[in-house]
Amino acid sequence: MHNMIIGGAGMLGQKLAAHLTGHTLTLVDLIQPPPTAGATCLAADLTDPATATALIARRPEVIFHLAAIVSGQAEADFAQGYSVNLDATRLLFEAIRLVSDYHPRVVFASSTAVFGAPFPDKIPDDFHATPRTSYGTQKAMAELLVSDYSRRGIFDGISLRLPTICIRPGLPNRAASGFFSNILREPLAGLPATLPVPDTIRHWFASPRAAVGFLRHAATMDLGLLGDRRALNMPGLSATVAEQIEALRAVAGQRAVDLIHRHPDPAIAGIVSTWPQDFDTARADALGFTAEDTFDQIIAVHLQDEARNVRT
Amino acid sequence: MHNMIIGGAGMLGQKLAAHLTGHTLTLVDLIQPPPTAGATCLAADLTDPATATALIARRPEVIFHLAAIVSGQAEADFAQGYSVNLDATRLLFEAIRLVSDYHPRVVFASSTAVFGAPFPDKIPDDFHATPRTSYGTQKAMAELLVSDYSRRGIFDGISLRLPTICIRPGLPNRAASGFFSNILREPLAGLPATLPVPDTIRHWFASPRAAVGFLRHAATMDLGLLGDRRALNMPGLSATVAEQIEALRAVAGQRAVDLIHRHPDPAIAGIVSTWPQDFDTARADALGFTAEDTFDQIIAVHLQDEARNVRT
Repeated sequence: MHNMIIGGAGMLGQKLAAHLTGHTLTLVDLIQPPPTAGATCLAADLTDPATATALIARRPEVIFHLAAIVSGQAEADFAQGYSVNLDATRLLFEAIRLVSDYHPRVVFASSTAVFGAPFPDKIPDDFHATPRTSYGTQKAMAELLVSDYSRRGIFDGISLRLPTICIRPGLPNRAASGFFSNILREPLAGLPATLPVPDTIRHWFASPRAAVGFLRHAATMDLGLLGDRRALNMPGLSATVAEQIEALRAVAGQRAVDLIHRHPDPAIAGIVSTWPQDFDTARADALGFTAEDTFDQIIAVHLQDEARNVRT
Repeated sequence: MHNMIIGGAGMLGQKLAAHLTGHTLTLVDLIQPPPTAGATCLAADLTDPATATALIARRPEVIFHLAAIVSGQAEADFAQGYSVNLDATRLLFEAIRLVSDYHPRVVFASSTAVFGAPFPDKIPDDFHATPRTSYGTQKAMAELLVSDYSRRGIFDGISLRLPTICIRPGLPNRAASGFFSNILREPLAGLPATLPVPDTIRHWFASPRAAVGFLRHAATMDLGLLGDRRALNMPGLSATVAEQIEALRAVAGQRAVDLIHRHPDPAIAGIVSTWPQDFDTARADALGFTAEDTFDQIIAVHLQDEARNVRT
C-alpha cells in the first residue's frame, strides 16, 4: 500500500506519517518535510500544474490532502487562498481524472469553517454550508468537487470537517483560535498564556490523536456507505473555556490556572462568536469515527503524546 | 442604467431583454444574439480569459449571468461543463474584482439542481446543497463564489435557484425535463406529445414570465437584506403531471388531452424521481419574489405571451 500525504510537513501530516510506517509513504509539502523513517520526502508547489501530474505518476493508493492556506491568511490574501485551497486541489483531482485506469482513495481535510452563523444549538449532519470566510468558501467548493469526482468514479473520496485541534503542540501562533490551545499547553509547561475571550465561550474540539484517527479510518473504511454525500462532520467535544480551565485545574492545580491572564480582545471575541459551538455527529458516529468525551482526556492525550515536547 | 445579459441569446435572456428597453442594454452569447431594439449584441466566448475583461471594461451596472452548459450536456462532457459553468463564471467574477472602483450588481441564474435526493416533502430554505449531477455541483460552486465575492464587497450578488420553467416555448427538446412543457405546449397547438413518466410524478414549476420577474426583482431589490447567504430558492408551483393535464383539459378540452401519448421511459422516470418536488420558499416570498399559484395561470401566461408562436 502506497500512502501519499500532501501537506506532509504540517503538524497533522507529521503525526499521521508516524502511524503509516510499514507502508510505502510519500510526504509532500511546499517545504521539504523533515526526514521520516522509510518515507520519500518531496518539496513541491501544488499550484504548479506540472506538480500534480508528477505526483500522480507515482500512483499512490491513498492520497491524504491536508495542504491549505489557513483561514486568516486566506482572508488577507484573496488570490492566494483561492489559488492554493481551490485551484491546487482541482489540479490534483484533474491529474487523477486524466489517468483513466487509476482510481485512488482521496481523504480531504475540510473544516467546520464551511458553516457560518447563525447556527442551531447543535449543528446537525445536514446543516447547510454557508461559509462566512473565503477559507470556508474554498473548503466548501473543494468538498463539492470531492463528491462529484467520487460520484463519477474518478476517485473514491471523502471530506472530513475537522473540529478545532486542541491541544495543538508547538509554540503559540497567531491564529484566532490559537488561545484554545495556548491556555492549556503553556500553563502545563509552567508558562503564562493569554485568554482574549470570556470563560463562557463554547467551541468544538478534538485532539491531534483523534484527528489522526479520523484520517486513518477514512483511508480504510467502505466509503460506499456515504452514498453521494461525501462530506462528513467529524465527532468532537463541545466545551466552554471555563470547562477547559477546570480540566487544567484538575491535572495541574490552581498554580497552572493562575498562569492564564485575561486580556479581553473584542476583535477575537467577535470572530469566535461566529464559530460553531456544538454538533450532533450521528452520521460519523455510526460510521465508526470517534473522539474524546471530556477535556480531561484531551489533556491526557497531550501529556502522553507530547511528553518530549512539554517544556518544564 | 446599463444592463448586460450574458446568455442573451437564450430563451430567458431574450424575454428579459424585451423588458429592459429604455436602458442601455448589452446582450452577449456564444452565438450572436438576434438584433434587439436599442441593444448592443455581441458574440463572445466566456471561456476565453480575455472576454470577461473586455466585457467588464463596458462597466455595466447590472450583469445577468444566465449562460450555462445544460444539465445533460454537463453530465456527458465533464470538462466542458466545468469549463463553462464554473471557470467562465469565475473569470467573469475575477475580471470584476480586478477593477478596484467597480462594484456592479450580479444576478446569477442557479438551479434547484444544487439539491440532491433524498428530500423532505417540502424543501426548506436552509436545505443543504448536495447535488447529484456535475451541473448541480458547478452551480453550487458558483453560488459559493457569489456569496464570497459579495461578502468581500467585490460585487453585490445574488443567486436565484430557478424552478423548472414551464411552459417552455419553441420546439420540443431532448432535455429530460422537456416533457413537462411538451405535454402542454404541443396539444395547445393541436400537435401530439409524449409523456414518459406516470401521472403521479410531482415537480416544481414557474412560467417564463415569472422567471423574468425574478431576475428583474433581483436586479433592483436591496440585497443587503440577504446578509451573507446570497443563494435563494425561487417561488414556484408544486404540481403533478395529472394536475398539469387537468389544467390542459380545462382550457383546451378532452381533444387536447387525447393528444398526449403515454410511452413510459424508465430511464427518464428514474432521473425525474431524484428531482425536487416541492419547496417552502418563505425567504424569497418575504423578499417580494412571486410566481404562479395554479397551472391554469401558467397556461394562461403561455397563451398570452406566446400567442404569435402558438402553432395552429
